[in-house]
Amino acid sequence: MSPERYARIRTMLRMRQTDLTVCMEQVHKPHNLSAVIRSCDAVGIHRIHAVWEEQDRRVRAGTSGGSHHWVEVNSHDDIGQAIGHLKAQNMQVLVTNLSDSAVDFRDVDYTRPTAIILGQEKYGATDQAIALADQDIVIPMVGMVQSLNVSVAAALVLYEAQRQRQIAGLYDTQQLSEEECQRILFKGGHP
Amino acid sequence: MSPERYARIRTMLRMRQTDLTVCMEQVHKPHNLSAVIRSCDAVGIHRIHAVWEEQDRRVRAGTSGGSHHWVEVNSHDDIGQAIGHLKAQNMQVLVTNLSDSAVDFRDVDYTRPTAIILGQEKYGATDQAIALADQDIVIPMVGMVQSLNVSVAAALVLYEAQRQRQIAGLYDTQQLSEEECQRILFKGGHP
Ligand SMILES: C[S@@+](CC[C@H](N)C(=O)[O-])C[C@H]1O[C@@H](n2cnc3c(N)ncnc32)[C@H](O)[C@@H]1O
Ligand SMILES: C[S@@+](CC[C@H](N)C(=O)[O-])C[C@H]1O[C@@H](n2cnc3c(N)ncnc32)[C@H](O)[C@@H]1O
Repeated sequence: MSPERYARIRTMLRMRQTDLTVCMEQVHKPHNLSAVIRSCDAVGIHRIHAVWEEQDRRVRAGTSGGSHHWVEVNSHDDIGQAIGHLKAQNMQVLVTNLSDSAVDFRDVDYTRPTAIILGQEKYGATDQAIALADQDIVIPMVGMVQSLNVSVAAALVLYEAQRQRQIAGLYDTQQLSEEECQRILFKGGHP
Repeated sequence: MSPERYARIRTMLRMRQTDLTVCMEQVHKPHNLSAVIRSCDAVGIHRIHAVWEEQDRRVRAGTSGGSHHWVEVNSHDDIGQAIGHLKAQNMQVLVTNLSDSAVDFRDVDYTRPTAIILGQEKYGATDQAIALADQDIVIPMVGMVQSLNVSVAAALVLYEAQRQRQIAGLYDTQQLSEEECQRILFKGGHP
């Protein structure tokens, strides 16, 4: 590995946020999956979670801009198990949902350990996800459409989290263990 | 048209921002076009601009959530003509571009009349667009990927504009002329 590439990967690893994540609930269009993972990489997310609709659990490389090499994807059997896993890590679990009880996505404290649930393209998050989550959040809209594209919604919430975390200094101290960094450097050096 | 639908359309029209727009330069993937238009509708954009790569100028209905009925699309022959048109309306023309001279997208005043140029999926904005625009803007990224999906980038800039404009009260006074509203109400009532 060239010194430049080593330095680039080290810089990236230093900013990875281990206590910020998303959980995709049956998001299934490949271009949406890819766009979500790409945005996750861009705000420094290390690991994301997914519950798949079908058997095919592979994230296609297509339009992810290579980000699927750098963001770990944990698959779960069902949303109950996924949310249990996230809560066991003391994360607040937020579900993006177009409901009346939802709070504006900008009124949430994302400097806390946070997981954001994204719903399926057509049907949104399941009732189970909404019941198990701590809070519904919504991105305000003033037009005629009922919802945004799911990868767009994800990015808006993640960049609000990035903004708050940057101000709070959460990108200034390495969160990943040195062991984990070495593992990733090894993988990244031998693709 | 039902009274409810009439009221809904009137509310939407009252918030339309006539001095905020995007210009898509050869963005060509249908799902990206649709996602951009959907976000435009959601932040209250009335009319957008496009320079197309190919002959096919039709925005497909596919995944726009119906927003293509509510956001007007002006086609231009080339980017020079498009930017000339926008500047003639006293708009500041911002180009989203991953350059060293670009300013952080959050450091821009979007309460001014503003047009945001979005570049093609693979090659980004053309040199001509960059030369003609007033300012490059960039969305910061701390991961390994080089860029975000174009519809994601568009939404992030637009929602920053929406945030600033809401604080400034720009959604509180109707900007569209009554004549234009009547035209749209007529169309919307007879799809
Ligand atoms: C296309 S939407 C699903 C719409 C579905 N008909 C519903 O009512 O939930 C797909 C996903 O995008 C996200 N989303 C879209 N627009 C949103 C908004 N304005 N606020 C919060 N999340 C949104 C949510 O994760 C949602 O589950
Ligand atoms: C996939 S990118 C094009 C990447 C291209 N290789 C380049 O260097 O410009 C497509 C479009 O998305 C927008 N975009 C993507 N990431 C961006 C970012 N971080 N800041 C600003 N615009 C971005 C720009 O409009 C860009 O032209």
